[in-house]
Amino acid sequence: MLARPLIETKRDGGRITSAQWRQLINAYAAGGIPDYQMAALTMAIYFRGLDRQETRALTDAMLHSGATLDLSHLRQPRIDKHSTGGVGDKVSLILAPLVASLGVTVPMMSGRGLGHTGGTLDKLESIPGFRTTLSLPEIVRQLEAIGCALIGASGDIAPADRRLYALRDATATVESIPLIAASIMSKKLAEGLTGLVIDVKVGSGAFLPELDRGLELARTMIELGADHGCPVIALLTAMDRPLGRACGNALEVEESIMALRGEGPPDLMRVTYALGAEMLLLAGVVRDRDEARRRMEVSISSGKAAACFQRIIEAQGGNPAVVDDPGLLPEAPECEIFNAPRSGVVSRVDPRTVGHGITLLGGGRTRVDDAIDPAVGFVITARPGDVVRSGEPLATIYARDAAGVAAGRRALSAAIVIADEAEPPLPLVSHRVTEAGVEEYLEG
Amino acid sequence: MLARPLIETKRDGGRITSAQWRQLINAYAAGGIPDYQMAALTMAIYFRGLDRQETRALTDAMLHSGATLDLSHLRQPRIDKHSTGGVGDKVSLILAPLVASLGVTVPMMSGRGLGHTGGTLDKLESIPGFRTTLSLPEIVRQLEAIGCALIGASGDIAPADRRLYALRDATATVESIPLIAASIMSKKLAEGLTGLVIDVKVGSGAFLPELDRGLELARTMIELGADHGCPVIALLTAMDRPLGRACGNALEVEESIMALRGEGPPDLMRVTYALGAEMLLLAGVVRDRDEARRRMEVSISSGKAAACFQRIIEAQGGNPAVVDDPGLLPEAPECEIFNAPRSGVVSRVDPRTVGHGITLLGGGRTRVDDAIDPAVGFVITARPGDVVRSGEPLATIYARDAAGVAAGRRALSAAIVIADEAEPPLPLVSHRVTEAGVEEYLEG
Repeated sequence: MLARPLIETKRDGGRITSAQWRQLINAYAAGGIPDYQMAALTMAIYFRGLDRQETRALTDAMLHSGATLDLSHLRQPRIDKHSTGGVGDKVSLILAPLVASLGVTVPMMSGRGLGHTGGTLDKLESIPGFRTTLSLPEIVRQLEAIGCALIGASGDIAPADRRLYALRDATATVESIPLIAASIMSKKLAEGLTGLVIDVKVGSGAFLPELDRGLELARTMIELGADHGCPVIALLTAMDRPLGRACGNALEVEESIMALRGEGPPDLMRVTYALGAEMLLLAGVVRDRDEARRRMEVSISSGKAAACFQRIIEAQGGNPAVVDDPGLLPEAPECEIFNAPRSGVVSRVDPRTVGHGITLLGGGRTRVDDAIDPAVGFVITARPGDVVRSGEPLATIYARDAAGVAAGRRALSAAIVIADEAEPPLPLVSHRVTEAGVEEYLEG
Repeated sequence: MLARPLIETKRDGGRITSAQWRQLINAYAAGGIPDYQMAALTMAIYFRGLDRQETRALTDAMLHSGATLDLSHLRQPRIDKHSTGGVGDKVSLILAPLVASLGVTVPMMSGRGLGHTGGTLDKLESIPGFRTTLSLPEIVRQLEAIGCALIGASGDIAPADRRLYALRDATATVESIPLIAASIMSKKLAEGLTGLVIDVKVGSGAFLPELDRGLELARTMIELGADHGCPVIALLTAMDRPLGRACGNALEVEESIMALRGEGPPDLMRVTYALGAEMLLLAGVVRDRDEARRRMEVSISSGKAAACFQRIIEAQGGNPAVVDDPGLLPEAPECEIFNAPRSGVVSRVDPRTVGHGITLLGGGRTRVDDAIDPAVGFVITARPGDVVRSGEPLATIYARDAAGVAAGRRALSAAIVIADEAEPPLPLVSHRVTEAGVEEYLEG
């Protein structure tokens, strides 16, 4: 099969048929289509887009290029949450055990950090011994036993997407909404879900900063879900500042443990509860958001959610004692308080600058094969809108050595802007998107 | 050097600097940039274009990726002609010896046929023994001795263009005017020319059928020439029907020999003289078009032009006796007259259908590495506008076997349209484009 006519079709604004997508992706996965033809096609898609049927066909083709989890024998609803990524976004670590503790199966498949954004797998791996790579039978057994697994997409799942994603990354075609949606959904649909909640980040630290692009991505994923019988609901949440206080792998695990014990920072808890309520509603285990919120609070205050996290850690080879004693997590040898250089109002805590700062400290990646230092990062207590006095502590820098401390200081000096007036921050949860349309999100 | 930021720049409509083009093309030629990144970049260029300075920088970079001919020691002006390609376009075979016989050095570098269009190298190689691959020193010696060489672009000339062209062909990015112009000019400038005439074909059989696209290509190449101190003049000529009567490699060589002996068909001679006059004017060896025309006619009638072709054939290893006896060229074993299926007016002789017909007979290529049969093709005597009677001969089919004859018959049935009224054909030579602008071409 020759790819060139399909490249021509897309280049000229035409449609590729479902049968052609299937042939193309099968051939690509089998090595029958060279990367250079696929690169030209993805750039043509970047400019011309894909319609709903094409996006569906591409997703199907990538989904069926690999194995899928058959979880139909489980009696429970199976719900996952996906985030488009940000800085300080440790919601998955809290939400997965929390929702699983309430009778929902949560097969949570996550990714690694790249660029300024962190990744759930990297965070989990800061727990001594924690394995994120499980075989498909191991995943099924763990879901049967505990109701939750926190894993990476294995090589068996959507291998065509894996190859295509690496190619898009190298050829500047990542930022195409139908390609993003097809990539995410081909993996999510392989989990055998009965519903999916998407956290679409908007604001300067988001992968797609503009609201309209975030909404378009949400709608595309909702359509893809509908076309595959998997209801999808999206919340648009703020990423114009880091979420929570901790930014850095082990620091974020510690904050997640504190959150599961009822001591999470308010912004983190609000986003977690908002997403959790949508998961519980999709699962059909609660009647409304109020009930969802109450049940989640009880699960946390009773210690049920934390105990579930402990069982997951144990099942995946990690040291479950970290839940009782976060001091067992890797600790950075150097730490330094970062003080306000002047008095005024905190007008910005720029998430990209914070994220790149973590990378400078060794806690993030600029290339997919970089090793990372789990212990380093920041705990930023200053929030946009806070009135501060010169010399008042705003954050703590955790670093490997003195050079890291200095790099962290420079990053925070750039990231935390103190001015005479504060810019108004984005609403923490701004919109809710379903098949029925977009609505403003109103806290219940 | 990383290509991804440059792909991003072009994808977003930005400019790549001259230094970046140089680095990029040098790295690509050296194998340091993978084809998939170059493919994504060329597709972004397809959509975003290149401005004059970028086109110049890309051309320079490809030109300097390889060797160039130093012909500055020759006292004569050095002029080449380039055609964007068509069906029955054997002008180079006539023009090169004709203009060389009038005191101009003609280092003519040509290509091979692909798709529906023929190639000068394939035509020349139907002459028994003719070698189109000469080393650079051989080319220089032949230009010193005879004033003309008919050659392919050697591997030493613009190797980056060679690699990039093959990639564009595989990724549907050939039809980008700045990339076409840069590809042609990087090779032409390597010939050390003092001037270049371009035959830009327009009409259904042309590579770029629309007049405005042909004009844009002409202007781009004229700008590139001006930026490199090599004056370029373009004529726009008709390719809504084949040029001349013969279509097929050996058949076209035979027609070219007849033309050099004063027996060429009128349309072929008019295009040849029009292009030849521009070459002689650029060379500064004539005062005006009338003088050019007279001198070309004398060179043909005196046998000087044919003798020059003979010397070229001999110097390049071919059998020079073909000029006196075209019967020495390969001959097809089967031939059949194609008669008019009805009475009426010839309203079209479709060049693409004729070109693809030659390929079906084995005389063209669908892939660059296809072998070709030099003997097969058509001689089409019917011209658009001719009034014909049912059963009257319109063409002759030359084929390898009975199946070829049948394929040829089908092709001509589709290509030659007889109707009650004729569509008006395009003017044979419609426009002349120089640095000063576009003018209607008026025969002088």
